[in-house]
Parts: sequence; structure tokens; C-alpha cells
Amino acid sequence: MKVGFVGLGKMGAGMAANLVKAGLDVTVYNRTASKARALEQLRARVASDVGEACACDVVITMLADDNALSAIVLQQGGLSTSLPRGGIHLSMSTISVALAEKLTAAHAAAGQGFVSAPVFGRPDAAAAGKLFIVAGGAPDAIKRVQPLLDAMGQSTLVVSEHPRDANLVKISGNFMIASMTQAFAEAVALVRKAGIPAQTFVDAMTSTIFNVPIYKNYGNLIASEKYSPAGFAASLGHKDVGLVLEAAGALNVPMPLGNLLRERLARLLAEGNGELDWTALALLSATDAGLARGP
Amino acid sequence: MKVGFVGLGKMGAGMAANLVKAGLDVTVYNRTASKARALEQLRARVASDVGEACACDVVITMLADDNALSAIVLQQGGLSTSLPRGGIHLSMSTISVALAEKLTAAHAAAGQGFVSAPVFGRPDAAAAGKLFIVAGGAPDAIKRVQPLLDAMGQSTLVVSEHPRDANLVKISGNFMIASMTQAFAEAVALVRKAGIPAQTFVDAMTSTIFNVPIYKNYGNLIASEKYSPAGFAASLGHKDVGLVLEAAGALNVPMPLGNLLRERLARLLAEGNGELDWTALALLSATDAGLARGP
Amino acid sequence: MKVGFVGLGKMGAGMAANLVKAGLDVTVYNRTASKARALEQLRARVASDVGEACACDVVITMLADDNALSAIVLQQGGLSTSLPRGGIHLSMSTISVALAEKLTAAHAAAGQGFVSAPVFGRPDAAAAGKLFIVAGGAPDAIKRVQPLLDAMGQSTLVVSEHPRDANLVKISGNFMIASMTQAFAEAVALVRKAGIPAQTFVDAMTSTIFNVPIYKNYGNLIASEKYSPAGFAASLGHKDVGLVLEAAGALNVPMPLGNLLRERLARLLAEGNGELDWTALALLSATDAGLARGP
Amino acid sequence: MKVGFVGLGKMGAGMAANLVKAGLDVTVYNRTASKARALEQLRARVASDVGEACACDVVITMLADDNALSAIVLQQGGLSTSLPRGGIHLSMSTISVALAEKLTAAHAAAGQGFVSAPVFGRPDAAAAGKLFIVAGGAPDAIKRVQPLLDAMGQSTLVVSEHPRDANLVKISGNFMIASMTQAFAEAVALVRKAGIPAQTFVDAMTSTIFNVPIYKNYGNLIASEKYSPAGFAASLGHKDVGLVLEAAGALNVPMPLGNLLRERLARLLAEGNGELDWTALALLSATDAGLARGP
Repeated sequence: MKVGFVGLGKMGAGMAANLVKAGLDVTVYNRTASKARALEQLRARVASDVGEACACDVVITMLADDNALSAIVLQQGGLSTSLPRGGIHLSMSTISVALAEKLTAAHAAAGQGFVSAPVFGRPDAAAAGKLFIVAGGAPDAIKRVQPLLDAMGQSTLVVSEHPRDANLVKISGNFMIASMTQAFAEAVALVRKAGIPAQTFVDAMTSTIFNVPIYKNYGNLIASEKYSPAGFAASLGHKDVGLVLEAAGALNVPMPLGNLLRERLARLLAEGNGELDWTALALLSATDAGLARGP
Repeated sequence: MKVGFVGLGKMGAGMAANLVKAGLDVTVYNRTASKARALEQLRARVASDVGEACACDVVITMLADDNALSAIVLQQGGLSTSLPRGGIHLSMSTISVALAEKLTAAHAAAGQGFVSAPVFGRPDAAAAGKLFIVAGGAPDAIKRVQPLLDAMGQSTLVVSEHPRDANLVKISGNFMIASMTQAFAEAVALVRKAGIPAQTFVDAMTSTIFNVPIYKNYGNLIASEKYSPAGFAASLGHKDVGLVLEAAGALNVPMPLGNLLRERLARLLAEGNGELDWTALALLSATDAGLARGP
Repeated sequence: MKVGFVGLGKMGAGMAANLVKAGLDVTVYNRTASKARALEQLRARVASDVGEACACDVVITMLADDNALSAIVLQQGGLSTSLPRGGIHLSMSTISVALAEKLTAAHAAAGQGFVSAPVFGRPDAAAAGKLFIVAGGAPDAIKRVQPLLDAMGQSTLVVSEHPRDANLVKISGNFMIASMTQAFAEAVALVRKAGIPAQTFVDAMTSTIFNVPIYKNYGNLIASEKYSPAGFAASLGHKDVGLVLEAAGALNVPMPLGNLLRERLARLLAEGNGELDWTALALLSATDAGLARGP
Repeated sequence: MKVGFVGLGKMGAGMAANLVKAGLDVTVYNRTASKARALEQLRARVASDVGEACACDVVITMLADDNALSAIVLQQGGLSTSLPRGGIHLSMSTISVALAEKLTAAHAAAGQGFVSAPVFGRPDAAAAGKLFIVAGGAPDAIKRVQPLLDAMGQSTLVVSEHPRDANLVKISGNFMIASMTQAFAEAVALVRKAGIPAQTFVDAMTSTIFNVPIYKNYGNLIASEKYSPAGFAASLGHKDVGLVLEAAGALNVPMPLGNLLRERLARLLAEGNGELDWTALALLSATDAGLARGP
């Protein structure tokens, strides 16, 4: 099986590397060519344009957002025209439900398959092949890409035959994470103002009822007030919560907590802090409580 | 060491039983005497009034709320007069910061020690000696009661020398749980309206980033819409979130998510659903989204 | 001056009639031709297509929403091609800031003028020539259309040289009205549950600090629980609050009250009540408080 | 009729002066004696203690809050013991529903009458006899005090036979005002960030649909960003919204907007801005939008 891989950012670089290490025949493409060099050393082929990467059985995309993916797929000479009939586009980016529907239709019209398989995990998990993958698509298409998913993730959960459903589950998961962060933000402001160290509270939670890595990672970031450099920027969080609310708006599902989160994240952006890690929601709560930074 | 135990409700019964099984000399008291019988069969002594249970080295209380504990401690002939000088009151109920401060002062004035050690866990964890305990109090007092805590819980985290701090951490933890529940409620309403089964979403979360029992338990309750009988009633959740906001109000700490939670729980009560499990927050979100009950 | 008028709905019919009564030479167009008859009897000319109504000095549009206006203006043979160079498009609909910007550019490119002049007031005010008009546009263009505005409204406030600014002021005004409604909704639920008649509270407010027609009208609707037929439907309110939040989103302005309003209105829609008057926000608050309908 | 008047703050001083000017026999008392001098010059008698002011037919109280009024009424030698049987306590302060109920019972037990008649209006309205009065109490008691109310206000609206109902209407009215303020705060932040002057928006609202003094006063304060000195301090607003939510909590009435307001006001207090005028809610919205102070 010939595999194309488009998008060698923080996440994509590690994912593509794992495919190569698994012995697959991989051709990579990135707009900024320099990022492809590390992959070349691992014996991946490097394509000089998108079309070249798409001359394969399965082309994987891992891009920043709706705009970036749309541009790659729908442009002239782009993915949807270069991928052969019968080929599969395996989209692993965090994109909107609306775009997933649009791509499903576009690929079907071109006689191609489309699988949405967004991931949970940060760049270190991508590099280690430890991503959690949520997939949606036609059963036979998923079956064909399963070896690739196995090389990149620690598990794949198929949620639906509709690609868009995987995207909805993914962005809803990000909403769950943002909610956890806001809860930590408010609780930490409260205990700190009462004179209890933030780390004490975080430890009390993560050594008992919330004994799971994501709570530890986020709690520790908040306790240490290390919001920069961002693991996941507030601006991206704002975008993702916006995708959730866009989907909720289309379906008339009121989400008061979702709205609260977007408002808080919008405030970070408005105050010029969009590049901080999105755990900086805790910075807002501390500020609102009249707390100075520091222990 | 002679131990008194006051309050044999769903939680207290299991906790007292574990003390007896650990070989301690335990005298129990409950307002409704019938509940003491099971303990009697385990070889606990049964006191006929509070005072009798307090003629000991350490008296443990596990009661429903501030009012119940205040009544037991501060009434004439109550705990604070019956407990000998040098004795310790080990309070394990979920009570307010304000009451913890009041009791700390009252016991100090009477030459007694006071330790706050509220717990995380449901009745089954209490029965199994698997509670998570969060403790606050003078180091020597905590040292004295440690064997008792070891018999009741799987771990004890000492957060402060001030008893009240343990109570603040405990109720803040309940706020974290309520936040998780509201996040699940909104996300499940969204995915359900998009045609994805609730259980699929819950599994996608709890097999990946939120792979921890509390998420599984709460998520499964919401997916199955089994809000009755309540494991933890909405009315109690409303009370606990109220305690958090009372503490936040006293310290001028804005908690927008806390306020959202109280409002949602108040609505459950107003609609006559205070006896449902507090995961019925998901019932509200489903209703607001125009979803009928059922799969 | 020759005037075209497109859109003879509840609002537009009264506005066009006032232009005719003021002695102006008016040609009207409506997609549903029957609505033009009443105007014909007043001596307006009736155009058979949009282009015919646009062969004039100033063409006024009063349409339901962005989509309707876009279709009329930007379609082939539509307003922007039929209106002569030097002509003015006077847009009085409640539309988005984004569309106002787009139309400003489109008309400028075609050598035409564009004035945004949305209105406050219900159909009865439109019929009586008592609308409040908020205008934005180039000073000379506004000067030319001023006699038309005078015929339709009781006052015109020019807020900016940018048409879009008038639209932002208009939708922000609708946000102010929605906020007033939500405040009434919650306060009325509170006093009613305390046993005080809703009308008593409304009278207490509107005979004192809020002695102004809009408070009386909205308060009385809420007190009488007459949500149907709608004066202004919840679905339209939801759309307008959405326009506000779209503008706020583009500028990164957090609006927690705006988000609250959208969520409440979305709930009305989700529950199948989008056709009720938007004062039915009070129905939600009453329901949440466990109040039955009726006195 | 002999009249006592207790509480000569910013509001009380003007109210008492109007009673004297109306020819009534008035004895005033204030804890800080110096404030009584201006009244003495108008020919009011000055009492040296509360009891002396209560030796009358009707004693009026105008005090800061629940604590101040409780102290005056319920202390030894206080109002409830000094006022003769058959006398009436006319309470005009903004107090809680719970305290109104307590005082109703206490006075009834002492054979005295109790009327609650809180007011809308700032100190200038108090001085001009232009207050809006909302009254609750037994009809005959209200009849007896009506001449006094007429001397102090421009209108009296009797809402109920229960004194507490007048207090609930009053604090709910303050909630309505706070809601208006928050709406202005968010809308002004939005239009300012779009480049429209705040004053333009305020004028657009207050010359049209919201053409009423309270909107003008509050809008102009916000447009000019003059938050100090406070006409009505954020700390008092926070207290009053707290009274509303206390009443709502007792009746299980969810008030999401009420909670939002309390949270915003709490943030002002936490940031050390409790002494600013409560229109400083607009300062928060401007800050959150990343706007600098100034035009």
C-alpha cells in the first residue's frame, strides 16, 4: 500500500515517522519543505507538490484547521483531483462537522473514499504512537486504513459510518477538556484565596477521584502558572469551542457551559493572550479574584 | 483507644463497621436506634445517647449537613460538653467552611482537639474501606487519629493545619464533579441530537482521555438515563455547590461556572426533581435540546 | 425624485404607504404580488420585477434577513445591476455588519451610493410613520434620502459615515431589548413564586423608574402570558442575537449576557417554540421555577 | 401626629427635611449627631437616643442594610421596645425579605404596626421629594402613614398587605437596573471596539426606545467612564443582588442573569473596586474586550 502524508506540523511529523518506522511506503508533503527533511532521513519519499503525494492508495492529512484542509483538498490540482478513483482520503485534523460533510460528498462524487479519524493527544503522544483515535466512515474504508491507524495510535474507536460523527465526538471531547480546565481555574482561585497552595488542591484531586494523566497535566500547568510556551494555544481552543457551538447552533442545542467557555477564551484573545496555553483560563479566574501571580 | 461514632447513615454504617473489623473498641450512636443493630452484631457497643458515645478518646461524626452536626455538637449535653478534655472530635461530614471554623474554636475553648477529614466516595467505597480522605488539623491530632483513618480509607491526604481547609478542598472537589457532570450533560445532548448514541460518546471519552472510574460511572448513568434511585441526590448537590459559593462569596471569588451549576441544580429542585441523582443535570440539557427520553 | 421600494411585508407595507402619502413617486415590488395591491390603490406603481423597481434615484429595501437581501441585490438582474450609476440603495432591513460591508463595497464598485438605515418599531409604528431610524452612510447620500426618512420615521439619528455602524447600533439595540426581556422574565418568576401577581410587579416598574412604552408593552405581554401570535418571533430574536454575537466574535468582545440570551432563545427553538413572541423567554423562567401557567 | 425619623444619611436627610417642610412634628435621630444639625435648623427636634425618637405615633427608619436596621430595632431599649403600642414602624430601607418577615412578627407581638415602604431614587430625588415609593402592609396602617409618604415621594404604589412583598419588589427592581447596566456594559464595549463612540450609542438608545431618565443617567455615566465618586457603590449593588438571590434561593427560582450579575459585581469587589459606582460593570466589559480607558 502506498501512503501519502500531507501536513508535517508538530503532530503530523511524529505520525508520519511512525508510519515509516512501521515499514510502510510513505510519501510526505509539507508546504514548508524544510520540515520534510527529518522524514527523508527516515527513508520517506518527499513530494514536491500535493498532487505527487496523492498518487497513492491512501492519503493522510493532518492540518491546522478548516481553511488549511479546504485549500489542500479543493484547490485546483489539489487532493480531490490528484487522488485516484478508489483511493481513500484519511483526514485526521480537527475540523468542523460542516467541512466533514462537504468532503464526504466531494470524495463520493469523485469515486474516492473518505474517513475522518481525528485524534486525542499532544505532540509527544503523536511521536510515541500513543494517540487515541476516533474514527468515522464506511466500514470497508476503515478496514483498509486500520493498519495505518494502528501504527499511529494506541487505540481506534469507530463511532459511526458517517465521517462527520467522528469530528463531532472529537470537538465535543475538546469541550469536555475545556470544561475541566475552567472547573480547575475557578476551584484553584478559590482555594488560593483561602490560603491553600494550588498544588495542594491539584494533588488532592489527581491522587484521588481524578487520577488520570489529563487532570494531572492540566492541574500541574495551572498550579505552576506556566502558560507559555503553549502546549495548546488559547486561540486554538477558542476555535474548537467555536466549532462545537457552530454544530450546536445548527442543531438548536443550548450549551450554557459551552457559551461560558467561548466567552472566557474570547477574553483571553481580546486581552492579547491568545498565544498562551488555554489553561490560562486559570489566569483569568485568578485575576478576577484579585490574586497576584506567584505562590 | 476508645472510639465513639455518631451517625450511622449510608456512609457512616460502613465506616463504623470497618473500625470494628480493625479491632478497635467502638461505641456507636444513631438517632434512629434500629440502624445500630447491625453494628451491635459486629460487636460494637451501642450508646443510648450522644453523651455516652462521647465518653472516649476520639469521637467520629458522619452526619448529613451543617444543621445535623451543629445540633449534635453544640446542643446541651452534646458532643462538645461530653467529650473529655484532651479528646478529639474527628468530623468526616461534608460541612461548610464557616461551621468548621466555629467548631475549631469551640473545641479549642473546651480543651479538645478537632480534625476535619471529609471523604470522597459513595456508600460502596465506605463499606469497602476504600474512601479517599482529605484531612486538616493540628499535626499531633492527625497523628493520633491516623489509625482510624487507615481503617476507613484507601488514602489520607493532609492538606493543612486548619481543619476548615480540608472542608474547602472537599466541597471544591464536589464542584469539580458537578462541572464534569454538566459538561457530559451538554455534550451528550449535542451528540444525541446529531444522531450519535450517548453510550458511544461516553465510551469514546472513558476509554481514552478520561479513563477513570468517576467518568465511567457518571457517563454511564447519563447514557442510561437512570436518575432514580439517586446515588447522590440533586438536593445534596445543590447544597454542596451552595457551600462552595458561600465560601467564594465570603472571599469575593467570582465563580461563573459555580453559579451556572447552582442555577441548573436549583431548576431541578424547582421542577420537583430534587430526589433524582444529580446526573439529572443531563435530563435538563436533553429537555432544553428538545430531545425525548429514550435511546 | 423617483423612489423604488422592495419588500412589502408587515413593516415595508406601512413604510411604502407613508412615502406615497407624502406625495413621492413610488414604484413598489414584492415577490408575492398580491401584497402590492393595497399600495396600488394608494397610487403607487407596481413593478413586475426587481429591475423595474430599481430604475429610479433611490431604491429602498425592507427584507427579512441577510439571505433575502443578498438574493435581491446580488442576483443576476438584481438591484446592483439595475440601479443606475449615481443611484442610492437605502437599506432599512436588520442585517449583519458583514453584509453591510459587502454591500458598501459592491455599490461603490458600481458607482452607486449605499445608506444603511435600520429602524426600531413594530408594524403599527411603521404604519403611523413613527419609526426610530438609525442611519449610517456618506453625508451627501444621507442628505439626499433624508426626505424619505422623514416620511417614514419620527426621528433619524446619523451614527456614522460607515453604513455598517448603523447596523451594529441596531442589532445592539435589539440586544438591549432582549436583555430587558430576560430581566423581566426572571424577576416576574421570582415575585410570582412569592405570591405577588406579575402585573403588580410590571406596574411597579413601569409607573416608576421604567416609565417608557417598550417596558410597558413587554411587561404587559409577560404578565398576561400572551406569547402568540408573535409581535416579534423568538426565531427572529435568536437570529438577531446571533448577529450581535457574530459581530462580537469577529472583534473578540466577550458578551456573557449575549451568550446567555442566545442560549435561552435557542432553547425556545429547540423546544418547538420558535414561533412564539420572544417575550416567551418568560415562559422558560416560569417553567424553570416550577410555576404553572395562569394567574 | 408625632413622627420619629432614624437615619440621616444621604437619603434620610432629604426625606426628613421634606417631612419638616410639610409642617409635621418631627424628631430625628442619627448615630453620628452632627448630621442632625441641618435638620435642627429646619425646626426638627433632635433626639439624644433612639428611644427618644420612638416616643411618637410613627417612627420612620432609613438605614444602610439589614444589620443596621436589626441593631436599631431589636437591641435593648431599641425601637421595638420604645415605640408605644399602637404605634407604627415605617421602614423605608432596602432590606431582605427575611428581615421584613422577622420585623413584621416582632412588631405584631408588641402590638405595633409595621409598614415596609422602600424607595427608588437617588439622594437628589430624596431631597426634591420625588422618590418612587413601593409599599406593603395592612391597609389601615398604610392609610395612616400615607401623608408622610406623600411628603417624601412623587407616588406610592401599594403592592401587598405583606410588608415583605414591598421589599421583594424593591430588590427585584434593583435587579432590573443592574441588568440594564450589564446590557449597556456589553453593548458599549462592542460598539467601541467597532470604532463607534460610546456616547453615540447611548444617545441612539436614549433618544428612541429607551427615552427615560434612568437609561440616560446610567448610559451617560458609562459613556463618560465616571465611576467615582459613586452614586451607588458596587458593594451596595453586590449586596442587593445578593438579597435577590437569597430570596430566589429560598423559593428555588433559578435566575441565570441574577447569578451573572452577582459574579460580575463580586469581581469588582475582588479587584478592589467595590467603592466605584456600580456602572463600573462597564469597566469590566471594556477590560475584557481589551479596550483601554478613554475615548
